[in-house]
Amino acid sequence: MDKSRVAAFTDAVVAIILTIMVLEFKTPETFNWEGILEEGPYLFAYAVSFIYISVAWYNHHYMFALAPRITKRIFWINNSWLFSMSLVPVSTAWVGEFISERAPEYFYLIIFFIWSITYMWLTSGIIKTASEMGENEVSNRISAMPIYRFLRSIWGYLIYVVVAIAIYFYPPMGIIITLIELLFMAYYTTDDSDQVA
Amino acid sequence: MDKSRVAAFTDAVVAIILTIMVLEFKTPETFNWEGILEEGPYLFAYAVSFIYISVAWYNHHYMFALAPRITKRIFWINNSWLFSMSLVPVSTAWVGEFISERAPEYFYLIIFFIWSITYMWLTSGIIKTASEMGENEVSNRISAMPIYRFLRSIWGYLIYVVVAIAIYFYPPMGIIITLIELLFMAYYTTDDSDQVA
Amino acid sequence: MDKSRVAAFTDAVVAIILTIMVLEFKTPETFNWEGILEEGPYLFAYAVSFIYISVAWYNHHYMFALAPRITKRIFWINNSWLFSMSLVPVSTAWVGEFISERAPEYFYLIIFFIWSITYMWLTSGIIKTASEMGENEVSNRISAMPIYRFLRSIWGYLIYVVVAIAIYFYPPMGIIITLIELLFMAYYTTDDSDQVA
Amino acid sequence: MDKSRVAAFTDAVVAIILTIMVLEFKTPETFNWEGILEEGPYLFAYAVSFIYISVAWYNHHYMFALAPRITKRIFWINNSWLFSMSLVPVSTAWVGEFISERAPEYFYLIIFFIWSITYMWLTSGIIKTASEMGENEVSNRISAMPIYRFLRSIWGYLIYVVVAIAIYFYPPMGIIITLIELLFMAYYTTDDSDQVA
Repeated sequence: MDKSRVAAFTDAVVAIILTIMVLEFKTPETFNWEGILEEGPYLFAYAVSFIYISVAWYNHHYMFALAPRITKRIFWINNSWLFSMSLVPVSTAWVGEFISERAPEYFYLIIFFIWSITYMWLTSGIIKTASEMGENEVSNRISAMPIYRFLRSIWGYLIYVVVAIAIYFYPPMGIIITLIELLFMAYYTTDDSDQVA
Repeated sequence: MDKSRVAAFTDAVVAIILTIMVLEFKTPETFNWEGILEEGPYLFAYAVSFIYISVAWYNHHYMFALAPRITKRIFWINNSWLFSMSLVPVSTAWVGEFISERAPEYFYLIIFFIWSITYMWLTSGIIKTASEMGENEVSNRISAMPIYRFLRSIWGYLIYVVVAIAIYFYPPMGIIITLIELLFMAYYTTDDSDQVA
Repeated sequence: MDKSRVAAFTDAVVAIILTIMVLEFKTPETFNWEGILEEGPYLFAYAVSFIYISVAWYNHHYMFALAPRITKRIFWINNSWLFSMSLVPVSTAWVGEFISERAPEYFYLIIFFIWSITYMWLTSGIIKTASEMGENEVSNRISAMPIYRFLRSIWGYLIYVVVAIAIYFYPPMGIIITLIELLFMAYYTTDDSDQVA
Repeated sequence: MDKSRVAAFTDAVVAIILTIMVLEFKTPETFNWEGILEEGPYLFAYAVSFIYISVAWYNHHYMFALAPRITKRIFWINNSWLFSMSLVPVSTAWVGEFISERAPEYFYLIIFFIWSITYMWLTSGIIKTASEMGENEVSNRISAMPIYRFLRSIWGYLIYVVVAIAIYFYPPMGIIITLIELLFMAYYTTDDSDQVA
């Protein structure tokens, strides 16, 4: 398929997902500072999800720059990934409203988990296509991505258990640990991660 | 016209149609699981419409990649198609709210029907332009698209009758049969469907 | 400036203006047909505004394809034009809610009028730049656009008077005459209107 | 990174930020002129923010056209800048609702201030990368941008103090002085500001 058109469509969807989260800020009904300070928890949840989607986009950019071909299979996996990510505004809105409650925190974690599955699926789909076309350097470079290696390692799974337990005892830890995890994911990238186009 | 600009404009509209459906998820007013589980029927309707628009986009990508020229006539048919598709969030929201009721299910079916008409119109418009320009290979390839052949066949019309009867006896069958139909449309494509750019 | 980036930014804004009008459809609170039929007047207003913005985009595509250069001046006029067009969803929502009332119909007309001013300003800005650069063929072709010639002719102004009087006696005539005017604008274009890229 | 993809993603986010502000116009519940005239203060706030984001985009276009390379660092600064700008619809909605109150006006000023910080950070990030790559002409041209020189000068900081005092005595002065500042920023640009692509 036309890689740049698929990427442009993906970017439009990601940009809208990112930006409609802003609509969840309710205009305060009063004109004093309390009105805006009530938005604090949602601002925090929004910031975490903004970093989340930025990390996702950054890695998508890398994979698509290297991908030799976008097959019908990759198109559908890519759309599954977009679908799972489109639920992030929902979980963000809920957790921002009830940041100290278990169910919203678990729900945020579940959406994150489903997103990770589709993300790994997308990565391995691109690796597989590259391998089939004999582009071994591409498949090696994508396989070496720290986020991919982390998510499919035992640690990538264990962290869900840790977060799940933490939420049980102190719910806000859900989104806090997720933030820390995202900062690691943003930080650890391959050296060539911004040298592809 | 500038094919890439028309495609980019179309993509932006399609991406927004796809993503504004997320806004229909209401943030639960409670922090227990019941709050989010109430969104279940809408999640199902949203997933079906997401697949629907993905199928539509995939086939649009194919036709536009092959189309030798975007005439004023095709521009307007393309916009009619976008207009009919822009009503999908409306029918999805209604059916997601009342998944077991006849009127919303029939309404979803009607929008699907109108969309099919504009889709067939777009396809035949591109075929006609290609033929007039002597690009017979292009018109043959587009004419051979399974979705186009299905929609204009007797089966393409009969299925509306089947769905209409099914809705009468058990309303949720409307969206369920539509899902099955979409999965077939997603599956059956020509071999070269992802080999154009 | 980078013409394709300015055009892409414009397209994104236009696509969003077009599509957020869909958000004005309220999901019916009942599951019977009355629920959806109440949306009828808004559907009509939305369809008119959809054609309106499609006509606008079509002509913008033509002018930008020919424009030899996007200056800072044209950038700002283009943004004024986008600003005036961004008020169309507001006037459409109001007129769709009260299609038989004078104030919403006059308001729709006023927004249309302001939009026409910015549109003519954009056209003459591009013509002027082309002339200054010695691109007389470009300035002649853009000057010959029927929509531009109509809007700045005596008829282009007289029609506002006609519509204003018609609204006074029978408010829905406002949007009906606008629809007729738009269909003429969509129909009458120069022969080369879709032959630029 | 692929500069055009990063720019296209940025443009999509900026276009959405710009356009979702339209959603804040509430459809009047009455059909008389009072209904729409109540939107006056918000229309003013929206217009100011529209100019604001247009100025931002114009300068972003210039910097990205010159930037020799988009590094991971610039990607993240660019996203911080987008994040700060995504709060503009929130502050605009609040100030448009309570244009004569201190807290909303101060909040608008605070968002403007945070945005300025991320904007200066983005500019200096691009300058630094250009310098490191030996592209001294690029770093000189970007360093010479009037908006950048103003924001980091003593005047750029003093104006916040002036606005803060003005708001204390007459709140609407907050957004009025901001408008004047923006008009200056729109006016004063380098001569080559629209001659890059």
